[in-house]
Amino acid sequence: MKYSFKNDYSEGCHPEILEALMHTNLEPQEGYGEDIYTQKAKALIKDKIGNLNCDIYFVSGGTQANLIVISSILRPYESVISADSGHINIHEAGAIEAVGHKINSIKSDDGKLYVEDIRQVLSEHDEAPHVVKPKMVYISNSTELGTIYTRDELQKLSNFCKLNALYLFLDGARLGSALSSKDNDVSLNDLSKFLDIFYIGGTKNGALLGEAIVINSDNLKKDFAYNLKQKGALMSKGRVLGVQFMSLFENSLFFDLANHANLMAQKMAKAIEKSGFSFLSKPQTNQIFPILPNNLVKKLEEDFDFYVWKKIDKEKSAIRLVTSWATREDIVDEFINSLEKY
Amino acid sequence: MKYSFKNDYSEGCHPEILEALMHTNLEPQEGYGEDIYTQKAKALIKDKIGNLNCDIYFVSGGTQANLIVISSILRPYESVISADSGHINIHEAGAIEAVGHKINSIKSDDGKLYVEDIRQVLSEHDEAPHVVKPKMVYISNSTELGTIYTRDELQKLSNFCKLNALYLFLDGARLGSALSSKDNDVSLNDLSKFLDIFYIGGTKNGALLGEAIVINSDNLKKDFAYNLKQKGALMSKGRVLGVQFMSLFENSLFFDLANHANLMAQKMAKAIEKSGFSFLSKPQTNQIFPILPNNLVKKLEEDFDFYVWKKIDKEKSAIRLVTSWATREDIVDEFINSLEKY
Amino acid sequence: MKYSFKNDYSEGCHPEILEALMHTNLEPQEGYGEDIYTQKAKALIKDKIGNLNCDIYFVSGGTQANLIVISSILRPYESVISADSGHINIHEAGAIEAVGHKINSIKSDDGKLYVEDIRQVLSEHDEAPHVVKPKMVYISNSTELGTIYTRDELQKLSNFCKLNALYLFLDGARLGSALSSKDNDVSLNDLSKFLDIFYIGGTKNGALLGEAIVINSDNLKKDFAYNLKQKGALMSKGRVLGVQFMSLFENSLFFDLANHANLMAQKMAKAIEKSGFSFLSKPQTNQIFPILPNNLVKKLEEDFDFYVWKKIDKEKSAIRLVTSWATREDIVDEFINSLEKY
Amino acid sequence: MKYSFKNDYSEGCHPEILEALMHTNLEPQEGYGEDIYTQKAKALIKDKIGNLNCDIYFVSGGTQANLIVISSILRPYESVISADSGHINIHEAGAIEAVGHKINSIKSDDGKLYVEDIRQVLSEHDEAPHVVKPKMVYISNSTELGTIYTRDELQKLSNFCKLNALYLFLDGARLGSALSSKDNDVSLNDLSKFLDIFYIGGTKNGALLGEAIVINSDNLKKDFAYNLKQKGALMSKGRVLGVQFMSLFENSLFFDLANHANLMAQKMAKAIEKSGFSFLSKPQTNQIFPILPNNLVKKLEEDFDFYVWKKIDKEKSAIRLVTSWATREDIVDEFINSLEKY
Repeated sequence: MKYSFKNDYSEGCHPEILEALMHTNLEPQEGYGEDIYTQKAKALIKDKIGNLNCDIYFVSGGTQANLIVISSILRPYESVISADSGHINIHEAGAIEAVGHKINSIKSDDGKLYVEDIRQVLSEHDEAPHVVKPKMVYISNSTELGTIYTRDELQKLSNFCKLNALYLFLDGARLGSALSSKDNDVSLNDLSKFLDIFYIGGTKNGALLGEAIVINSDNLKKDFAYNLKQKGALMSKGRVLGVQFMSLFENSLFFDLANHANLMAQKMAKAIEKSGFSFLSKPQTNQIFPILPNNLVKKLEEDFDFYVWKKIDKEKSAIRLVTSWATREDIVDEFINSLEKY
Repeated sequence: MKYSFKNDYSEGCHPEILEALMHTNLEPQEGYGEDIYTQKAKALIKDKIGNLNCDIYFVSGGTQANLIVISSILRPYESVISADSGHINIHEAGAIEAVGHKINSIKSDDGKLYVEDIRQVLSEHDEAPHVVKPKMVYISNSTELGTIYTRDELQKLSNFCKLNALYLFLDGARLGSALSSKDNDVSLNDLSKFLDIFYIGGTKNGALLGEAIVINSDNLKKDFAYNLKQKGALMSKGRVLGVQFMSLFENSLFFDLANHANLMAQKMAKAIEKSGFSFLSKPQTNQIFPILPNNLVKKLEEDFDFYVWKKIDKEKSAIRLVTSWATREDIVDEFINSLEKY
Repeated sequence: MKYSFKNDYSEGCHPEILEALMHTNLEPQEGYGEDIYTQKAKALIKDKIGNLNCDIYFVSGGTQANLIVISSILRPYESVISADSGHINIHEAGAIEAVGHKINSIKSDDGKLYVEDIRQVLSEHDEAPHVVKPKMVYISNSTELGTIYTRDELQKLSNFCKLNALYLFLDGARLGSALSSKDNDVSLNDLSKFLDIFYIGGTKNGALLGEAIVINSDNLKKDFAYNLKQKGALMSKGRVLGVQFMSLFENSLFFDLANHANLMAQKMAKAIEKSGFSFLSKPQTNQIFPILPNNLVKKLEEDFDFYVWKKIDKEKSAIRLVTSWATREDIVDEFINSLEKY
Repeated sequence: MKYSFKNDYSEGCHPEILEALMHTNLEPQEGYGEDIYTQKAKALIKDKIGNLNCDIYFVSGGTQANLIVISSILRPYESVISADSGHINIHEAGAIEAVGHKINSIKSDDGKLYVEDIRQVLSEHDEAPHVVKPKMVYISNSTELGTIYTRDELQKLSNFCKLNALYLFLDGARLGSALSSKDNDVSLNDLSKFLDIFYIGGTKNGALLGEAIVINSDNLKKDFAYNLKQKGALMSKGRVLGVQFMSLFENSLFFDLANHANLMAQKMAKAIEKSGFSFLSKPQTNQIFPILPNNLVKKLEEDFDFYVWKKIDKEKSAIRLVTSWATREDIVDEFINSLEKY
């Protein structure tokens, strides 16, 4: 079988997490997230992000988190601003529109949004009440292109949003990878200050399933659990999520797993660079997008699974390589070997 | 008071229509469009378009028509393709998203959609089930930029849509003006053949209010009236719409009014062209978009109301001039005079 | 042709209203309710209800008013409490659910809601977040059964709603008839004090179309116009609504028309009572529901159109008789004659 | 700690299931349900129900299954008929209305629907297009009151639905318990014949999470996966669901677990009956509702956790006792002991 660099969810969960599920399995607990593991996981996360005042909810996946957060916050005529490559804009089968909201998409080459982009969207929506009212900015860290925000960029976005009465929401499906990047200067605590609401991805960082929604802004907290229930996200056995996040955050597992994924991707990135190839976007996390000759791509495909992301020109294509907590270094070395033999 | 070229709905309705409302006013009739005037109006329109087999419903406005048509046809995960300048995409405060559907917008310089554009959208949405499924093409005739489709263009769109199982829907808020353009080679009967569904605008062509939705495709007809009721569009006194469309179509009033509007705009367009100015889009109907020096724009604004549509460069801007059935030729002459004196 | 007591929208509009439309028809005005007639109509209504601080919007019909008001106020998981006979609950083809909200219906014999009913609904919804959160009370005056609220009843509902953080919304499609009832002790000004939001019906009280939404509570005012636009209710020629409400409220036309309708119904009610028949609900407005022997019903149906509302037992049925501003007294007398001859 | 008879999801999953998760954990697999375990689980279920032609999808919970199934099938103006005690009607925080559909609720004492109830709803909705159009019947087996349908009852419902163009949908969150009841005469294969669509509950029958949606009717199959994705139900690690259902159905685990739950409940039911107490509904599955003196209830509450379901009169209340695959017989015996000592 070919080894896969297609995504970061090919395996189950990290063995420590599975062990925790086993260890707690037969203990009777309250349903719907009222169990002690969920409570403990929340306390651990609050402590790690240094904001005891936030509210935390666990849900099973990223699209679910996105549609719940957005529909819970926006009024019917309000819209959300996103990079055109944003997950909500292209890879959620219209989940956000299905809960009633327009996405104002902005062309972005690196997957990130900047203050000037947002200002432009606002200026194009000044004809109330004929147009939607942009009210939220949606960003991802790391982005769909594997890039990350700097602390300074986040602060500028945050300031602009506050000044313009916009909510700032960060999709952290791959937050572990972002915060563990060698280029990162953002802390979990920064997120508490810069963002109104965000989530911490478990599914793509070693859990079986699960994202932790963190609500910082007081005015977004009221009645939040109703939204979970209504959208089918309130698991009877909420413990399944609680136990996993307890495992991820009681020691440093969350960061260790992300770190491994990043190291594996960066090892490949360095070899690719050394071989003289460039990238579609800066290789900063566990998703890298090298631009390779089509011949090489074909050759690599013989031994490895990955997505061809974009045709660059007649001779070259960008491919996407994704690593995870479970990526084996010997496979990475094999890949590098194949590349260098070319 | 300054004379307005801001839109085609500044006045009430054409006197003949008001007279018909008066004439029929005290006659007791069934409610909800079951009155004899509505029946007669439907028969007249069916006759004019040469398709006795279509279904017709009257609603009060264009946004209402758009949201009813689209929500009645698409399944939750299906989307509609539109030019970026399309009314549904920017000027309906998110009406289409509010009924649950994503709009796939396509950059368009002339407000029109072409087969190649649509093919491109389809090719970008082949990752089922992660992306929306484009299922309808929304076009306007005339467009938001005053341009019109040729018969050949419509036929090509229609063929492509049929081959690709896409519904083709035409927003005809300004259909009268399109069909009365000197450049037009499309007939009402063509629309019956090329389109699955369309509407004929009354509000912007001399009625107080009212659009006539025409359903050609048999599989879109079932239960349609439920959608009207549910979206608040089924008027108790449906006669108000029926009487007006009866007036518009029992003789040639519908076309006469559109023709007058076009003539007034074209008279201005010719003078503008003669004065050496160009246009943002081809001046074909009752909306024209001349590109004028900012000084001239300022001077014209002293005597006339209109929208400055788009900054072209430091010296020039495109303005929008709209005429209607009620536009007086002496005012048009005054405008031309002001222009030529510059 | 048989004369119809089926509804209060069989004719067009009152001649004075049509005359006002004619008189103002050719005056160029701003679109979308920015015209001077709309402004004047708003000022007149504010004056009549004695609350200069309210916000007013005109829309074309009752279902539209209901769905806009409710969707603009409730968050996704919030519900609205209604009598089971409420228009939103049975006669709007699911309009409220289509904008996302559950209706908690309460069995009601007289079409009215009482504090105890609402308290019961609240007590049945204490299992947050598994159940919806009732957040609004919807009442109609007059009700679907022609009954009206007393000032005391409204005050009690209002107090209870305030204490329990519920919004109180009154559907006034037939408000004119309610306030003109011989039994009425409620003033327009009372409505400003007791209700968060309500609307004044024009369509069923002599206008061609139109309802005036009145927003009393400050926290419901923000951005309201967006909702109109998004739901397809912002008419390009908003003047059509403005002129009509200007006519209705510049003198006493609104009340005169309602009064006539009530007088005609009450004349029939008295005769029915005198003939020894009873009623399904107290005959207070322009809708009355006499319980008649089936033979008599059959006989009346030969000369008059009306709905058989409900089978009472093997021998008797309740019928619905509706009068309007246009009901002729000679027809009423004919009806009474037929009845008494039985 | 008190032992809980509050629900059937207090523990994690059955150890065999956890073992299967462990055993397969590190095997790299395709995401989004394209893994081999999911494929195998589907094949096993198809085989067990004897319908190789059905389509199967796994989702994480019951509310999610309900909202996806219903929104995927109904057009905007169509409604779903449910018992008033139905999960969708009261315990999903308005999930069905949030996807746009009205629930026509029917008063039911035993939690079941009968043909006569449905016929009545249809007859009350004959005023198209003013009312919703009932188009689906939603039933649960076992019901919220622990009762089950007989084969004959299901067949009658099925026949009626087919005759009246209604879809028949069965919520099987507790299907295992229903099919394992001593009173049951329904087979999984019957469900394939009688129902258009149903689901098999895993969460309440020994899985960590997961429900298997089974689509029998061909016209409901098209594009179904889009709905999963759009509603946030398409898990990246779909294997988590696949592995669990593989475990449940590769041998008889699914039925063994349900059987144990039923036996424990029935043991209590017999003792309760023997002690001279009656039940709110027939005790047929793992949920029983004995009516007990308030004193006894209070005494039992000292040692056991359970819900007081309904006040019967001044002296008596119905309580709900729920057992599961994990309920220990010694605890059941203790409960019986406490009861008999009374």
